[in-house]
Amino acid sequence: MAKQEDLFKNVISHAKEYGYIFGSSEIYDGLSAVYDYGQNGAELKKNIRDYWWKSMVQMNQNIVGLDAAILMHPKTWKASGHVDAFNDPLIDNKDSKKRYRADVLVEDYAEKLLQKAQKEIEKARKRFGDAFDEEQFVATNDRVKRYLGQRQEILSRLADSLTREDLKDVKALIEELEIADPETGSKNWTEVRQFNLMFGTKLGASAESSSDLYLRPETAQGIFVNFSNVQKTGRMKIPFGIAQTGKAFRNEIVARQFIFRMREFEQMEMQFFVRPGDEMKWYEHWKEQRIKWHYSLKLGKENYRFHDHEKLAHYANAAADIEFDFPFGFKELEGIHSRTDFDLKAHEEHSGRKLRFFDPELNENYVPYVIETSIGLDRMFLAVLSSSLIEETLEDGSSRTVLKLPAVLAPTKAAILPLVKKDRLPELAQKIIDELKWDFQVQYDEKDAIGRRYRRQDAAGTPLCITVDHDSLEDNTVTVRYRDSMEQKRVKIEELYTIIKEEVDFRKWFE
Amino acid sequence: MAKQEDLFKNVISHAKEYGYIFGSSEIYDGLSAVYDYGQNGAELKKNIRDYWWKSMVQMNQNIVGLDAAILMHPKTWKASGHVDAFNDPLIDNKDSKKRYRADVLVEDYAEKLLQKAQKEIEKARKRFGDAFDEEQFVATNDRVKRYLGQRQEILSRLADSLTREDLKDVKALIEELEIADPETGSKNWTEVRQFNLMFGTKLGASAESSSDLYLRPETAQGIFVNFSNVQKTGRMKIPFGIAQTGKAFRNEIVARQFIFRMREFEQMEMQFFVRPGDEMKWYEHWKEQRIKWHYSLKLGKENYRFHDHEKLAHYANAAADIEFDFPFGFKELEGIHSRTDFDLKAHEEHSGRKLRFFDPELNENYVPYVIETSIGLDRMFLAVLSSSLIEETLEDGSSRTVLKLPAVLAPTKAAILPLVKKDRLPELAQKIIDELKWDFQVQYDEKDAIGRRYRRQDAAGTPLCITVDHDSLEDNTVTVRYRDSMEQKRVKIEELYTIIKEEVDFRKWFE
Repeated sequence: MAKQEDLFKNVISHAKEYGYIFGSSEIYDGLSAVYDYGQNGAELKKNIRDYWWKSMVQMNQNIVGLDAAILMHPKTWKASGHVDAFNDPLIDNKDSKKRYRADVLVEDYAEKLLQKAQKEIEKARKRFGDAFDEEQFVATNDRVKRYLGQRQEILSRLADSLTREDLKDVKALIEELEIADPETGSKNWTEVRQFNLMFGTKLGASAESSSDLYLRPETAQGIFVNFSNVQKTGRMKIPFGIAQTGKAFRNEIVARQFIFRMREFEQMEMQFFVRPGDEMKWYEHWKEQRIKWHYSLKLGKENYRFHDHEKLAHYANAAADIEFDFPFGFKELEGIHSRTDFDLKAHEEHSGRKLRFFDPELNENYVPYVIETSIGLDRMFLAVLSSSLIEETLEDGSSRTVLKLPAVLAPTKAAILPLVKKDRLPELAQKIIDELKWDFQVQYDEKDAIGRRYRRQDAAGTPLCITVDHDSLEDNTVTVRYRDSMEQKRVKIEELYTIIKEEVDFRKWFE
Repeated sequence: MAKQEDLFKNVISHAKEYGYIFGSSEIYDGLSAVYDYGQNGAELKKNIRDYWWKSMVQMNQNIVGLDAAILMHPKTWKASGHVDAFNDPLIDNKDSKKRYRADVLVEDYAEKLLQKAQKEIEKARKRFGDAFDEEQFVATNDRVKRYLGQRQEILSRLADSLTREDLKDVKALIEELEIADPETGSKNWTEVRQFNLMFGTKLGASAESSSDLYLRPETAQGIFVNFSNVQKTGRMKIPFGIAQTGKAFRNEIVARQFIFRMREFEQMEMQFFVRPGDEMKWYEHWKEQRIKWHYSLKLGKENYRFHDHEKLAHYANAAADIEFDFPFGFKELEGIHSRTDFDLKAHEEHSGRKLRFFDPELNENYVPYVIETSIGLDRMFLAVLSSSLIEETLEDGSSRTVLKLPAVLAPTKAAILPLVKKDRLPELAQKIIDELKWDFQVQYDEKDAIGRRYRRQDAAGTPLCITVDHDSLEDNTVTVRYRDSMEQKRVKIEELYTIIKEEVDFRKWFE
């Protein structure tokens, strides 16, 4: 655990030091749970987005793009259920004036019971060594059984109250467990209330009343309300998909874990419209396609796992998460949901417009079923960044920090380095850049000894370094150094395009 | 004028018919001044954004990217002046409850005087024919002189009141001119009040008070507050630039002209940091670079003009617009501004942090001066779309609608068309697509006669059609048809990559 926390801290400080992620408005002491992407972060984020877009839209003839606005007609959110049911149960401490998610307070309490049980097990393991049998120990150890049983009971009572939307029972549970404000220790709580997670704003268009708008809490609804427009003008036939990337906003009370849960975040979503009854076939298809997409980036298959939902949202008849092993454990990275015809039907009812497809094969009109693939761009960014940051011990015993980003996603594809800052080497390096920059994001660096520059580019994640030396002036060759293997080879300048292309080519990665 | 209005209506309906732009939340009767980009619009918008990003960030070693959040610390907008001075003077009609921009009401009145004068001139022109001398006529015609003089006086009184921020005088002017509510004719007005254009929202983080946030009204401030982070972690030396694309929001009361003035829009901005005293050199440099960028897209040089500002904003010591000839006349498309050290200094004062650069050549610390280039992505979209939509009369007297988009920006690069829907032609077409789609956005279309498919692709803006016929099965050749010239040529299938690349290559367009 301590090791994981250290790793996470490293990721966060490395992200800042190398221009990947800064806190938002840092000079004003920041804005909680909002982050800015720096010069390298902006490129990495853009490259992830492009990789997704290419693989979804460009590679699939039956998937088209969309770019709907963040502001939408407020009835959209009535129809989608967000106005009525997109809530967190919150509780305020009367003394500290701090606000908490009531369910998180209870879960944290249960988590502590689990930790206590684990501690007992750990102590026993130390005492009994090789002779230790965990299963038997748990079965006979009263304290462990009590901790685990209590935890089980608390969690099931919590789930039960939340399902019945009985917030009084949640309050009662907090009082019964004597849960205190984690910052001040006070147990003086208000009632638990529902708090809508949508950010509101006002469109000041008329004198009488300004309309209430929301910042969209998900991009999916932009796709649903445009279903007929896209289907008709794009002459799309079922099955077909609409893909979109864009910002969404949630007024999270307990936002934490860096860019994992932010108040402003970006989604990459695809809604795939299918014939009712065919949805399970397509659900399986997209589960398979999406995990293949993840594997193509070679972050390590062991870092992914599927989590099939047992409890389904009201709109779904099947759902699975692709979880990633983040520095804080396995957490949701992408969701694949079989959303039935819930959304389109809800918009039909609230708008009075038909959202149907005439299926020429069946000679029938119907509301299509929907399979959704929804991935958080910022989470994908964190997955890529955290699994790429490696502290390596080299053969000579020294260590190096290297950011082994997939080359297709790396912000800078190659750094062009003149061995020394004189003898016309900078000019030749510049000439090489002027040719390569048409096709690749490249960087010039002449400062410090060459070894130090290599290390800097390693840490920044640049897959290739190209060194221009005195021989280069004579024979038009340069040294190419590979970030991951540190292997070096001598190549002709005119081969550089092909060498870089080979490393970063979309097809090579995705095929 | 009538012709222009027709053209504009054509652009708007064509944009909808071909999946470029839909009204936002259309099924709920729309959201005023907000639009969604459809399947073709999303691609065109993305391609414009990429063209800008490549030309600014990838081509310039001393410009790096940034992707700051929409939500920022509220002090940002205090420092930038937006909280205090980003206002429109508004007036409400007490009877109709409609709200108007007071200055626009007065300007519309003045515009009508100009139209009256022009009508007189037109009438006289008809009466006197070839003998008509406009200058002499205006000098001797009392009515025309009166209209123009009155207009002049009204506009200068309005400008004067607004400069002195004396809104009582604006109200007095409206009453004196007996300006009525354009929709109802009522003259029963409220006072004129200032109305801030920023969208507000609340961050509900603590029980006591939730903080007031704004949706950013411009992306520039995200660059300024990150100046030191980027400069230090990116080891940037002056002169250098930070580029960013992203959404901004303005609660416009009178939003009109389609996507030209929207409440939610996207900016592409670059802030170039220079040594104080050097700013005029760089201002001229960026004026030149930016107009070259526009010319590279070949929308017609005659569609652009510079408008140098005489009245400067409080932060600028030089400013120019690049105006484009939209269907409603020449209007601002991009601004190039010499913003001095206004913004960085303001953030220094409000944050207490130093935003300086140590210049090793001068051995001196200073707050850099800034040259800004700021272009509206949606406006650029409209410029491209409206100037590309052409109604052509062909040699045989028939006409065709063609969207002559720059091929580098076109949503679909090539349509692959089997001549007939049988004889294994669809399979061969698909095989060609499976090869080309790795590098290009391509489309398959088998419906309707080939001539009709060509016309459809012309209207959608696809630069190349590739037709697969029975000979293709024998000799591996296909017909390539060029959208603009309608020229056709027979080529080998393996040449297709090179032929498409030649049309859409960034370097070919931008160099």
